[in-house]
Amino acid sequence: MAQTLKADARPPGTPRVPGVSPSEAGTGPQTVPLPDPFPLYRGGALSGARIACETWGRLNAARDNAILLFTGLSPSAHAAATDANPSPGWWQAMIGPSLAIDTNRYFVVCVNSLGSCFGSTGPASIDPATGQRYRLDFPEIAVEDIARAGFETVRALGIGRLAVVMGASLGGSLAVAFAALHPQGARRLVSISGTAAASPFAIALRSVQREAVMRDPDWLGGHYEPDHPPHNGLRVARKLGTITYRSAAEWRQRFGRQPIAGIALGADQFAPRFAVEGYLEAQAERFIRIYDANCYLYLSRAMDRFDLAEHGGSYAAALAASGHRGGLEKVLVLGVESDLLYPIQEQAAIAEAFEQSGVDTHFRRLPSIEGHDAFLVDIPRFDAELRAFLA
Amino acid sequence: MAQTLKADARPPGTPRVPGVSPSEAGTGPQTVPLPDPFPLYRGGALSGARIACETWGRLNAARDNAILLFTGLSPSAHAAATDANPSPGWWQAMIGPSLAIDTNRYFVVCVNSLGSCFGSTGPASIDPATGQRYRLDFPEIAVEDIARAGFETVRALGIGRLAVVMGASLGGSLAVAFAALHPQGARRLVSISGTAAASPFAIALRSVQREAVMRDPDWLGGHYEPDHPPHNGLRVARKLGTITYRSAAEWRQRFGRQPIAGIALGADQFAPRFAVEGYLEAQAERFIRIYDANCYLYLSRAMDRFDLAEHGGSYAAALAASGHRGGLEKVLVLGVESDLLYPIQEQAAIAEAFEQSGVDTHFRRLPSIEGHDAFLVDIPRFDAELRAFLA
Repeated sequence: MAQTLKADARPPGTPRVPGVSPSEAGTGPQTVPLPDPFPLYRGGALSGARIACETWGRLNAARDNAILLFTGLSPSAHAAATDANPSPGWWQAMIGPSLAIDTNRYFVVCVNSLGSCFGSTGPASIDPATGQRYRLDFPEIAVEDIARAGFETVRALGIGRLAVVMGASLGGSLAVAFAALHPQGARRLVSISGTAAASPFAIALRSVQREAVMRDPDWLGGHYEPDHPPHNGLRVARKLGTITYRSAAEWRQRFGRQPIAGIALGADQFAPRFAVEGYLEAQAERFIRIYDANCYLYLSRAMDRFDLAEHGGSYAAALAASGHRGGLEKVLVLGVESDLLYPIQEQAAIAEAFEQSGVDTHFRRLPSIEGHDAFLVDIPRFDAELRAFLA
Repeated sequence: MAQTLKADARPPGTPRVPGVSPSEAGTGPQTVPLPDPFPLYRGGALSGARIACETWGRLNAARDNAILLFTGLSPSAHAAATDANPSPGWWQAMIGPSLAIDTNRYFVVCVNSLGSCFGSTGPASIDPATGQRYRLDFPEIAVEDIARAGFETVRALGIGRLAVVMGASLGGSLAVAFAALHPQGARRLVSISGTAAASPFAIALRSVQREAVMRDPDWLGGHYEPDHPPHNGLRVARKLGTITYRSAAEWRQRFGRQPIAGIALGADQFAPRFAVEGYLEAQAERFIRIYDANCYLYLSRAMDRFDLAEHGGSYAAALAASGHRGGLEKVLVLGVESDLLYPIQEQAAIAEAFEQSGVDTHFRRLPSIEGHDAFLVDIPRFDAELRAFLA
């Protein structure tokens, strides 16, 4: 499985990669090899790199019904339940037979980002050159690399041109980067709550998250043992992340000033006291048990450094080719008015750039109060938008 | 100076406390004793507690021209230059002869909050009972205690009733708490960018800041040595604070994606790279050199726990007595539309409560883009509002 298979080497309908056998119930996780070497946007190259993915639905004979789904910073490729892993995925309500992303109709491929730690190659992987974990010797990765790795993954699965490339949060930026790098790679595109370039505010927030990790003595300059990671720093980082993914208005409704049930009179004043503190604690606890600290740092910094305007001088220039013949037929850009991390103006800028490129662009600003993560929570609104666009 | 002086023990115009000699040029810092014992809102009492203050202008013969100014979480009482300390204060542009807070007309007293570390009694002070620093043995303090300590400070200075009680941020909440506790303590009130009760969003942000401090191994459960404080945790906490005090829109204008000047190609990808990261670093560096970690924790938690509705069941009930005869004649509530930490709705709620209490209330929502800290930055707008109100 180490070699790259050519996109046109097999008859239509045949899975390209051993072990990848799409079914409606979902398959995976499985890993797909990237071209070897895989050169990186900011220099260097990866050898023997692989991308983990899961799939749902069937690739049709024309191979023109595939959706490539990119994730946000932290999820795995497990976007919905599969035969191998029946636990609910991170977008369970959205992907399945007759759901908004209808697996009766589409073949859906969700990829774990290059640089992440759920099966794709990243800083936590073994460097084939040394037999040791890469850690900080992993080369810097860019949003562009993650996008191209997604492109190569579906190519390896025998898909020449996608029906749809889509994603939310980091995934929303990845879909846009995909269009800049592979303007003929997809017929349609959905970018949700993404940005074409991180704002100084988002950079500031992420730099504080990284600093919390890197100042944890257990980080050890990236050389922590897998069973003794910098949990304290990751905990602080994730709690801050959780805050920026939601909104003040939602939490006012959801938690108010409600205390944690059963808190003792005279309890330590600094122990969690308010329900919202208990919620943050639960979110962080779940995260730090599964996420690798170095992978977190790499993906976080990649998000800071992404600037679509690097590809031609402006957003519109970067996307110009996607408006040409054989490019994108239709684009949907969704944003949420309460998004603190990637404010709605940033999605408006993406939509404007596609429009300037001559692409049929639909921009919708949703009044969800759940903030940046609304796509995971406000299912009715997102369901309606995706159904209308994918119909 | 340990005893409390009665408010009516001396002829008008005479300074009440040895060492306090108001002059237009400003005096201080000086400390004023609180009543001994000083009982606390959540239980316990302080013995021998003192409040540091600085003053500007002259108390008139009628003793009716005094302004009590509360600060935000971190400043000292040094709101403007004085003879003793000619360095600019935190509100230098606002306090002085012919400035918005006109010291030709008013006698201004700025107090360092009870629990802080700039001369007032707090966790970093020596416990007279043990001769050791209080550290976490300091009793829990509440916004109510800080407000009452301000009241007692001006009483000790011979002021029976204030012309104005005012403050911004935590100080804005303190002014409101002052009105609830001492409804006849001031003729007018200005509350800027404050809240009547911390939202779950603000609580969440502060809980992450405290956690960064408390998970720093140098914190040592509060027993760090003064020359070896938990700098790393404080640094993360202050950076996050700085982010929440400003706004995404301001930073987009101010920093954009500008890199730090002279950053080397191939520099460590996690080192500060963007100008906004350098700014955070400078802000944090300044803070961690002067602020005590335990004091920070105490004041931060006091802000979380403040809920004006504890005083009677609702905000309006808490402020009802300030609408009675001899209470407040006029109130100004200012808020900023870009405030992330204490959204403008929270200032609207304060104004509504005063209005319901029958006080002549003026509420102004300012379009400043500087966020919560706009009162320190957008001087023209705040200057105009204060001049109009104090005229």
